[in-house]
Amino acid sequence: MEREAALEIVQKQLTPHRYQHTLGVMETAVLLAKKYGVDEKKAELAAIFHDYAKFRDKEEMKSIIVEQKMDPELLEYNGELWHAPVGAYLAEKEAGVTDPEILDAIRYHTSGRPKMTKLEKVIYLADYIEPGRHFPGVEDVREIANQDLNQALIEAIKNTIVFLMKKNQRIFPLTFLTYNDLVKKED
Amino acid sequence: MEREAALEIVQKQLTPHRYQHTLGVMETAVLLAKKYGVDEKKAELAAIFHDYAKFRDKEEMKSIIVEQKMDPELLEYNGELWHAPVGAYLAEKEAGVTDPEILDAIRYHTSGRPKMTKLEKVIYLADYIEPGRHFPGVEDVREIANQDLNQALIEAIKNTIVFLMKKNQRIFPLTFLTYNDLVKKED
Repeated sequence: MEREAALEIVQKQLTPHRYQHTLGVMETAVLLAKKYGVDEKKAELAAIFHDYAKFRDKEEMKSIIVEQKMDPELLEYNGELWHAPVGAYLAEKEAGVTDPEILDAIRYHTSGRPKMTKLEKVIYLADYIEPGRHFPGVEDVREIANQDLNQALIEAIKNTIVFLMKKNQRIFPLTFLTYNDLVKKED
Repeated sequence: MEREAALEIVQKQLTPHRYQHTLGVMETAVLLAKKYGVDEKKAELAAIFHDYAKFRDKEEMKSIIVEQKMDPELLEYNGELWHAPVGAYLAEKEAGVTDPEILDAIRYHTSGRPKMTKLEKVIYLADYIEPGRHFPGVEDVREIANQDLNQALIEAIKNTIVFLMKKNQRIFPLTFLTYNDLVKKED
């Protein structure tokens, strides 16, 4: 699928604000892909579709998680996690995205997972550091992203965990397992 | 078992420094037990034995974890975790501690676990805040421990997770599952 066609499909699903964010993720993902030897077209398409399901009705997302036999634990955690796996499902079903690597990058862009591919890491990180993002710590992660993909990802996940803990929110287990997996070699 | 007999057994297993720590945990655990309606004698005995296996040879601990069919995942994580389950086993086998509630408090005093009993919480927390402990954040946890057992435990576990993440060390899954379990109601 070409960029313009993909953007046209996605724009209809998003608020203008979120569409701007998606453009930022797309640009950042392509830059990171170039830097770290990831297929740029795959990174571009995964970035364009990463928030495809962001504004779906929560009940519709719940039904999809149940009917498509996705991890039932998702339903016990914050609904903000749901749009990633549901987005992968809908990007395939409604928009005809079929590349499994791209679908996995959409699926795991919020939680991460152990043994992430480089494409998955690029999308997770691009979502975190795109130019529209402004929060404590993002500038540090942007700088590290220029040097070391893994270390940038570790910092992003740590920040996310600390952010959630400050609000006494639960952490989706896959996120912790992703952190453990990434720091394994340094343990 | 009476306090003096228990202390005599434990003293032989510990360095003088660690024995002083154990006395601090004992005093703190009894105070917390009183405050939160936990059996004081059980808290006292669990505290006395909590570090019983602290200075066992790592290879001996490994063998016990394997032979006693403890969670094999323990062996993939920091050896500092091992003395808790191994201590519960040895406190029973060598020192004749038989109360399963006391043994569980020893077993989970480092990792925690979901659905901790009040006795387990008291021992975890006493170990964290006894008067000999000096590290950033401990004073905050001491203050919260005067008001709210669960909240103090949440703060202690958060601090532990942040401490480990700062060193890029992995987090034992039971620890973050304990955090998730404790904050569940506040999610």
